Amino acid sequence: MKTEAARMISTANNAFLIAHVDPDGDTIGSTLALAHALRSMGKDCSLACSDRVPATLSFLPGVEWFGTPQIADHDLIIAVDVSDRGRLGPAYDHVVEMGIPLLNIDHHVTNTGFGTVNLVNTDAVATSEIIFDLLRDLDVPLDQLLATCLLTGIVTDTRSFSTSSTTPRALEVSSELLKAGASLIEVNENYYKSKSLGTLRLWGKMLDQMQLEGRLVWSVDSLEMREQCHAGFSNGDGIVNLLASVREASAAIVFIEKESQRVEISIRSRPGVDISPVAVYFGGGGHPQAAGAMLEGNLEQVIPKVLRKAQAVLDSEGQAWPSR
Amino acid sequence: MKTEAARMISTANNAFLIAHVDPDGDTIGSTLALAHALRSMGKDCSLACSDRVPATLSFLPGVEWFGTPQIADHDLIIAVDVSDRGRLGPAYDHVVEMGIPLLNIDHHVTNTGFGTVNLVNTDAVATSEIIFDLLRDLDVPLDQLLATCLLTGIVTDTRSFSTSSTTPRALEVSSELLKAGASLIEVNENYYKSKSLGTLRLWGKMLDQMQLEGRLVWSVDSLEMREQCHAGFSNGDGIVNLLASVREASAAIVFIEKESQRVEISIRSRPGVDISPVAVYFGGGGHPQAAGAMLEGNLEQVIPKVLRKAQAVLDSEGQAWPSR
Repeated sequence: MKTEAARMISTANNAFLIAHVDPDGDTIGSTLALAHALRSMGKDCSLACSDRVPATLSFLPGVEWFGTPQIADHDLIIAVDVSDRGRLGPAYDHVVEMGIPLLNIDHHVTNTGFGTVNLVNTDAVATSEIIFDLLRDLDVPLDQLLATCLLTGIVTDTRSFSTSSTTPRALEVSSELLKAGASLIEVNENYYKSKSLGTLRLWGKMLDQMQLEGRLVWSVDSLEMREQCHAGFSNGDGIVNLLASVREASAAIVFIEKESQRVEISIRSRPGVDISPVAVYFGGGGHPQAAGAMLEGNLEQVIPKVLRKAQAVLDSEGQAWPSR
Repeated sequence: MKTEAARMISTANNAFLIAHVDPDGDTIGSTLALAHALRSMGKDCSLACSDRVPATLSFLPGVEWFGTPQIADHDLIIAVDVSDRGRLGPAYDHVVEMGIPLLNIDHHVTNTGFGTVNLVNTDAVATSEIIFDLLRDLDVPLDQLLATCLLTGIVTDTRSFSTSSTTPRALEVSSELLKAGASLIEVNENYYKSKSLGTLRLWGKMLDQMQLEGRLVWSVDSLEMREQCHAGFSNGDGIVNLLASVREASAAIVFIEKESQRVEISIRSRPGVDISPVAVYFGGGGHPQAAGAMLEGNLEQVIPKVLRKAQAVLDSEGQAWPSR
């Protein structure tokens, strides 16, 4: 299958690359690496993403190439790190029906195989790991730019090699990327070590107000708190991981008040505890240890019903690992 | 030199292993790995450390072997991850004069070469990386226990592969350790993801009260705050790294009130800014990006003079990397 993907790319002249909605380090890093590779092969390409690239990834070389271009005149579409057509975004989900060859490169277990050719490897910790192999097949030598883009995908999808998904292969590939000149400092300084003062101040309030009930720890990120702290929108991700590090807890939930009647929940759990049923119950989704959903209602309405469901799920689950 | 170290170990029957004072994951992990190896070779050994092993490392197999044993009857002393004789601790710093062969295994650039034989490799990210090579020389096969001990040293000394010291080799060795059965989850869940509720509550207060002055962000961990939060002693390490992630700052300082007239300062800076002169000025030490010192006086006395010195050092330093 991989050879078929390489052949598909080799014969194309003008590729259309699509990253997924709500883009992360892997979809952006992988897409950029592929774009650098295609250009070094003398091919044209356009880079599409329905949503804006987060500021934490704006250091990546070529990030300014992303936009919302038209598809016409391209002879190959490549979806990068996109598990299903919905994740292409409203502007691009019709591309699967255009009759243009579509290469689907992804590592998610939930990938629906929507491509003409599907290069899906669920053993890879990140799509960047698959692109690393693909570039070898294409005889594209790694340079510093390419290597930094690919390292970004692996580092961000494994939360700096700390998730249980981290494999020996991911470490080996990362070692090769460092040898090729990838800058681990650049990735870390920009992606992880670049929080605003307001964000950390907000985290302070959230930690000060967190609650432990049974094996569940939770806190709130309200509109009022964000305003008090001059903090931007959606600072939930890092803080929920920090809450989940509480020794006494098996799971953590952050309630993010997006608007007055919309609350996002971000959920984490320890290895051994599958918390995803909580998100699924409320119309969301995710992985066993990291899930989320968007609920209608205000904080007073949403919090008690989510906590009730979460406690029920925790009661039906075994002990977290390591058992405490 | 390495072969000499291996020969020294091969001919010994009863070794005395010493970890450094105020022990961390590398000194404990490396010492335990060596102990497991020596026992698998049919040799006796004792494990010494002047200070208690932190609770975050109590999961390591064999950690109960540590104590403050007598040196008599041992035919080889091995100092593990100990940069100078002072770091052996008051109970053991005399061992360098006992006439017993002393093998000094370390990776610190400041190692004084106090051993009969010095296996010092400053290219290694952790002493665990040196032990990994030594075990190969000794033909000791890696098993799961050994591999987890060594992985702990590398993961903790590189803060989960995020420090600028992280090398391709460190990633390669870690990949080998995972293949040998080392549990990355076990290391992370115990070492990083095991904070008490009180600790995180304290962090909340510290973040809420942090100050940004110029390019310096700082906060206080006072006796009163710890009492309010039911938090234990010395929770400074993680929080100073978090403070140092503030985008607007080039350096971070945490003031930890140890007793009413003793304040510890913990300092971090971004790559490109050498903040260690601040610690050195107040009688402490450390690395360019991570340093510390212990000062006499109360918080009101200590804070202004440290801030003044830190601002002066920052003024004389260039821009942090990446420039902001």
